[in-house]
Amino acid sequence: MRSARYHGLRDVRVETIPEPTILKGSDALVRVTKAGICGSDLHFFNNGPDLGMEAGTRLGHEFVGIVEAVGGDVRGLAVGDRVVAPFVFSDGSCFFCDHGIHSSCTSGGIFGSPFWGEHAGGEVEGGQSEYVRVPEADGTLVVIPEALASDEHDLAVLPLGDVFATGYHGAVQTGVKPGDTVVVIGDGAVGLCAVQAAALKGAAAVVLLGHHQDRVAIGMANGATHTAEGGEEATAVVRELSDGRGADAVIDSISGDASIKQAVGLVRDGGAVSMLGMSHYFQPVEQPISGVFMRNVSLHPGVCPSRAYIPELLPAVQDGTINPGVVFTHDLPLEDAAKGFEIMDSRAEGSIKVALTP
Amino acid sequence: MRSARYHGLRDVRVETIPEPTILKGSDALVRVTKAGICGSDLHFFNNGPDLGMEAGTRLGHEFVGIVEAVGGDVRGLAVGDRVVAPFVFSDGSCFFCDHGIHSSCTSGGIFGSPFWGEHAGGEVEGGQSEYVRVPEADGTLVVIPEALASDEHDLAVLPLGDVFATGYHGAVQTGVKPGDTVVVIGDGAVGLCAVQAAALKGAAAVVLLGHHQDRVAIGMANGATHTAEGGEEATAVVRELSDGRGADAVIDSISGDASIKQAVGLVRDGGAVSMLGMSHYFQPVEQPISGVFMRNVSLHPGVCPSRAYIPELLPAVQDGTINPGVVFTHDLPLEDAAKGFEIMDSRAEGSIKVALTP
Repeated sequence: MRSARYHGLRDVRVETIPEPTILKGSDALVRVTKAGICGSDLHFFNNGPDLGMEAGTRLGHEFVGIVEAVGGDVRGLAVGDRVVAPFVFSDGSCFFCDHGIHSSCTSGGIFGSPFWGEHAGGEVEGGQSEYVRVPEADGTLVVIPEALASDEHDLAVLPLGDVFATGYHGAVQTGVKPGDTVVVIGDGAVGLCAVQAAALKGAAAVVLLGHHQDRVAIGMANGATHTAEGGEEATAVVRELSDGRGADAVIDSISGDASIKQAVGLVRDGGAVSMLGMSHYFQPVEQPISGVFMRNVSLHPGVCPSRAYIPELLPAVQDGTINPGVVFTHDLPLEDAAKGFEIMDSRAEGSIKVALTP
Repeated sequence: MRSARYHGLRDVRVETIPEPTILKGSDALVRVTKAGICGSDLHFFNNGPDLGMEAGTRLGHEFVGIVEAVGGDVRGLAVGDRVVAPFVFSDGSCFFCDHGIHSSCTSGGIFGSPFWGEHAGGEVEGGQSEYVRVPEADGTLVVIPEALASDEHDLAVLPLGDVFATGYHGAVQTGVKPGDTVVVIGDGAVGLCAVQAAALKGAAAVVLLGHHQDRVAIGMANGATHTAEGGEEATAVVRELSDGRGADAVIDSISGDASIKQAVGLVRDGGAVSMLGMSHYFQPVEQPISGVFMRNVSLHPGVCPSRAYIPELLPAVQDGTINPGVVFTHDLPLEDAAKGFEIMDSRAEGSIKVALTP
């Protein structure tokens, strides 16, 4: 089968590798119908050597597809089911899965990596492949309801496994509730999902901070009520909306030094800041504790346990309350994965997020 | 009247100053029956010049007393009421008071200071005085129920205004619930209150980390179920209690670099860390965001809005469920305030916390 592999700095290749098979009773074999390139893939693309990534590392952790085979212990899935995969696999039964932190599942990941084979080139294929062997299939995969179980809905459902769930995690972490004023920092795919998530939670005002007119326009059409580029403009908008107090919640999709300072500056006393981005791994970030201590602002860094959210988000996709698919600007053949990485990284052709079709 | 004042590094004097009077309709005049020296007073004592404190700054923000007079707008208090004061005054009606963040009250504080006159030497006396004019009296003071309204109960009630409420804030911030495993870092007065607060919230195990045998003994007699000095010993105790996962909540009463690292190391994935201490203001603290991102640990720095908690804690004092007074090792005449600061700062005579009686 064909599968995308990392071969070095900005070097992605689609290669022929052996088709996976069921190895354990808890496995499912999934034929991928749509895969995504994630912002975190771009971190690997641009920083692979620094991250210790080896040539041949498998890529992709966002996919939907059709169950082709199941192991003998699988109970909740049948051949032919259309499924969506979270970006972390999980057994669904450990303490952390029971507590909605599937990203910390004690059976999840492989060789300590929570993703689908990127880091260690392990025996689980990346999602940017024709087929994936899914470990802990019952605890990992979510069956897509009939109304959404077709090729035409793949782009709408695919983001629930990662990018949309991540934006939603920000709204959950910060406890967004009806009537709240919410700021979302960053107009990338996670930010555009976070504005929808905040609206879904009933926020009265959702302020999207971004610099890209095309992206901001998508945000304004999908949940955002206000927008600003940043700085004093953002402060003025938020103060106007909140009687001068600041936002009840700030969801920072970047989480680098500048955005964390911005988040802390825009949140009200007693409010909450979600840090969804990974920029803090790649740049020095001033510790924000002293700056918020007197103001009782809680800080929520955290990778998304997307498996926890997929079941509650699927009905909102089905009834049209949310439109996760708006983040996809490109859908390329899997063979063009390298081009997909280039386009998404360079933001060429107005790209926001790129899908790959095997 | 007599009142304690700061006059420079480690220089506390009790002086005669004019007795306060009612200045506004919302004021109450309180005759102090017991005042406390707070750990934060020691920060002023030891770092006053660095904090920009001027000679003559008034001291004390923990007191209980009897209402001697009320302004014309006061509705909820009567002359003769025994009252406990939180360390921040608050109007009880603004957005932040409505949301339980009385420490951010828009009417609270004086010249931008939330305390009782320390920072700016303003027109509100410090609590280490014979009398205090209390602004926003209806929103600030809490009437002590009859059964606790006497001199003999002052030491039990006084900590609700600051140190006990602060420990309790840690349990609230981290959402401690029945059955949880909780770690409390630090065996000072806040730590000894936090162990009681965690037990009050139903924690199944409360691990107190401290180096002082006398203090740890008090903790073990009042809520703590286990103890360790720190390091690998602490890790082993917490792992044993939690099936290897780590603590559901860590309440860090110190919040300096070492204790924050310890807290992050002991909390489980998806858990919460409360940072109640102020050490991060006085030493560099490595930012803990990257260290907890993959583990979804929420961080809760925050000064305590003690006014929010006093009403729910008074019944627990009355029925003996909690014993806030155990933190007091000394009760000195107000005239000996300087000695009280010395003893508490040096930890001489087994001191933990010192009360002052006018």
